[in-house]
Amino acid sequence: MEISDTDKKFMLLAIEQAKIAESEGEVPIGAVVVCNGEVIGRGYNTKNSGKSALHHAEIKAIEDASSKIGDWRLDECSLYVTLEPCLMCSGAIIHARIRNVFFGAEEPKFGGVVSLAHTFDIEGLNHRVNYIGGLYVDEIQTMMKVFFRTIREKKK
Amino acid sequence: MEISDTDKKFMLLAIEQAKIAESEGEVPIGAVVVCNGEVIGRGYNTKNSGKSALHHAEIKAIEDASSKIGDWRLDECSLYVTLEPCLMCSGAIIHARIRNVFFGAEEPKFGGVVSLAHTFDIEGLNHRVNYIGGLYVDEIQTMMKVFFRTIREKKK
Repeated sequence: MEISDTDKKFMLLAIEQAKIAESEGEVPIGAVVVCNGEVIGRGYNTKNSGKSALHHAEIKAIEDASSKIGDWRLDECSLYVTLEPCLMCSGAIIHARIRNVFFGAEEPKFGGVVSLAHTFDIEGLNHRVNYIGGLYVDEIQTMMKVFFRTIREKKK
Repeated sequence: MEISDTDKKFMLLAIEQAKIAESEGEVPIGAVVVCNGEVIGRGYNTKNSGKSALHHAEIKAIEDASSKIGDWRLDECSLYVTLEPCLMCSGAIIHARIRNVFFGAEEPKFGGVVSLAHTFDIEGLNHRVNYIGGLYVDEIQTMMKVFFRTIREKKK
């Protein structure tokens, strides 16, 4: 898979979602679902305000897309997310039959695509997801670092 | 981990949830979350009616439990589910910090605990989940078979 200028444009929209999370005091992670060149789902991390461990950006974006088109199958769609999806979100992406995943920075502690596990490459899956990482890594890592630094300083 | 009579009682409540799914024309899968001997979350599969690939029994039960106690951390809780959790739900269980998982039948196509992957055993996870399968396997497999046979007959 290759990264086009259009892909970069959509990743900037995922970063925009991450910034909404940040402005609400949540870890800045954002995602968009794109189908036929159109954004049909948006989501950002609301783990704390939602009081749920499951309110990840990808889950919210997939739910948003599914409710918009009235179908759980998103097989013509691509997902853009600022961080490598975790195990749960990787599983959700497979269930939703998303075709392509573009992510930003890798997530060594929780990543389910290339870090902790290679979920999309498991033998025997009923659906194959294409994936590529590395979009806007510097910008995304800086955004995360600034967020956590601010949190630490507030705690002092 | 061993299976007690109390565990069997809670699995029967998960089977009850599965039967609600069945009565609504959904694949009969059910789950409950138990904390200090009390059921605090219930869920059943609503993939079709919910028009979302993410509406699995475990996710619903975890969301229900989290919203009941107002916290995403369920670290004193056990989850009982009729089928082996999929990759997504295994990831969700880890995020919610659930301590013990009891499941019924294995799921060769999607199972993320002992079938397609061994998610709970991945090295480097920040949370360890105890798990055991094999509760009421015959009853659960029969329930599934009857459901799919009925679906096939209706389609004829």
